[in-house]
Amino acid sequence: MSNKKENSGSKAMEPLAIGIDIGGTGTKYGIVDRVGNILFSGEMSTRNHPTVEPFIDELYECIAPFIEQAGGVGRIKGIGIGAPNGNYYMNTIEHAANLPWKGIIPFGKMMEDKFKLPVVLTNDANAAAIGEMMYGAAQDMHDFIMITLGTGVGSGIVANGKLIYGHDGFAGELGHTIIVPDGRYHEGTGKRGSLESYASATGVRLNALEFLEKSDKPSILRNIPKEKIDSKQVYVAAKEGDELAKEIFDYTGKILGMALANFVMFSNPEAIILFGGLTKSGDFILKPTRDHMEANLIQVFQNKVKILVSHLKESDAAILGASALVWEMN
Amino acid sequence: MSNKKENSGSKAMEPLAIGIDIGGTGTKYGIVDRVGNILFSGEMSTRNHPTVEPFIDELYECIAPFIEQAGGVGRIKGIGIGAPNGNYYMNTIEHAANLPWKGIIPFGKMMEDKFKLPVVLTNDANAAAIGEMMYGAAQDMHDFIMITLGTGVGSGIVANGKLIYGHDGFAGELGHTIIVPDGRYHEGTGKRGSLESYASATGVRLNALEFLEKSDKPSILRNIPKEKIDSKQVYVAAKEGDELAKEIFDYTGKILGMALANFVMFSNPEAIILFGGLTKSGDFILKPTRDHMEANLIQVFQNKVKILVSHLKESDAAILGASALVWEMN
Repeated sequence: MSNKKENSGSKAMEPLAIGIDIGGTGTKYGIVDRVGNILFSGEMSTRNHPTVEPFIDELYECIAPFIEQAGGVGRIKGIGIGAPNGNYYMNTIEHAANLPWKGIIPFGKMMEDKFKLPVVLTNDANAAAIGEMMYGAAQDMHDFIMITLGTGVGSGIVANGKLIYGHDGFAGELGHTIIVPDGRYHEGTGKRGSLESYASATGVRLNALEFLEKSDKPSILRNIPKEKIDSKQVYVAAKEGDELAKEIFDYTGKILGMALANFVMFSNPEAIILFGGLTKSGDFILKPTRDHMEANLIQVFQNKVKILVSHLKESDAAILGASALVWEMN
Repeated sequence: MSNKKENSGSKAMEPLAIGIDIGGTGTKYGIVDRVGNILFSGEMSTRNHPTVEPFIDELYECIAPFIEQAGGVGRIKGIGIGAPNGNYYMNTIEHAANLPWKGIIPFGKMMEDKFKLPVVLTNDANAAAIGEMMYGAAQDMHDFIMITLGTGVGSGIVANGKLIYGHDGFAGELGHTIIVPDGRYHEGTGKRGSLESYASATGVRLNALEFLEKSDKPSILRNIPKEKIDSKQVYVAAKEGDELAKEIFDYTGKILGMALANFVMFSNPEAIILFGGLTKSGDFILKPTRDHMEANLIQVFQNKVKILVSHLKESDAAILGASALVWEMN
């Protein structure tokens, strides 16, 4: 679709986009050109802003100097924002469990008023899916599912070449689908047994604590204080041959694979693209995920769907995805 | 979009479509005009044809006289077919668990050769979804899910105003999504815990047998020989106030509601349209289904998604849906 080569001759004339990715902990922002070069970028805290107005004020202070350096506001086509529970139709962030701001936030409108630029907003994983379609592993794909495995589990679904936003703008909340009926409680949503409770970084930590409790197996994870065990520690242990750590990934992959099978039987994608911290555990997580996905698929879907890991640099992908929304604007 | 009034003045000139719905037991066929009038229709056995060629021969014998009466083959625009595991892209029926014909059947091609007419083929529930969009409860909807609750569970998904066929033409096999990990075995697929194993007519029968076995509660269902218990008997018992029969529907609704919540969190539809024998049990099944769907939805989806029962006549809907495929042909 496009490539990353700079066309410096016409560069000064080309429009640019601002991409902003709002996460529970931090917010990344950048100024991006049409072919995916990030000209300026930075990061600030989300968590330190219990109310939204000072957050937007600080974001403006951070980005305004870059806008000037990039040639002024006239050169910016718009602002694309990826945010948890972002509503594409309403330009709002609604009841986001992982953000400090509760209720329905007219975030898009507030940003437009502050920056005097058009704003398009969707959930962070939808933005990542558009980024992947424009610059990443999903180029030329018409049917794929993007799954982000970070602190939580996000998703963006493309079918018939278009992102599915759904009737109310909230499609693609696959992290909250129920995989284990009456299963583990999710603090953020109050629901039980969701994919996110098991197959996120947080989920792997909880899986590890459960396995350490239930099993008598020796494990180097037992040398780590419980409050310090996280998905990275489990990965390090598995790499050193720790059997229990491998079982923890097998279990995580069983849940994730079952969920992916369900998603395949929904929209029959060409590929599922995984992104985020958990993918760094490589085949420890990917192999059981593939195996259990295949085991739960009915025959017509078997051995057809690729599971790919995004090859976009994590720090860039969120900004690229959010900025890509701008090029899709009318 | 359209209505059922006849326009008899121009009727003789208007093109017609043949709609064929292939089920595990019987096959329905009809000749339909653009606004949904079924001019001729009939039914024949599927089950009595262990091989596909004699089946197509008999189907031709059945339909050919109607084609003549309708003004000859020149007036027919094409044939639309709904069939289990129908592949829209390949015009094949592939590994359909409920049909007598195994493997990959080039059904569309065989029909084209026999009838000398263009053929379009998709899974039966996809056809039903298109019928619902053209003549039924989904008129003017851009995002909805059609679920057929018959002997099995079928589905058709419309997003952004288009049916999702997926990369390989098999999207919308929601009956095979896993709802109860390691749950009930499905004879047809060899998988465990799928929606179809619990929330189809077959599933309700199995739920009933399980409840009769596990519980000591008195029930008029205990007066019926086990092999004769089916979903209709459970409905009749529930209507007479039988507590165990109601519990069986509550359980079925719990599973179905959980599954529908997952589907909502996937594509965020405006409505879920239910169709098929099980919907005749009315609120015995619909109320627990609605309650459990809402209970499993995260906040942004709650109290938004309508669960509707199709108001198309069951005998007509399958033919209408299949014929509607023809009007969508290029």
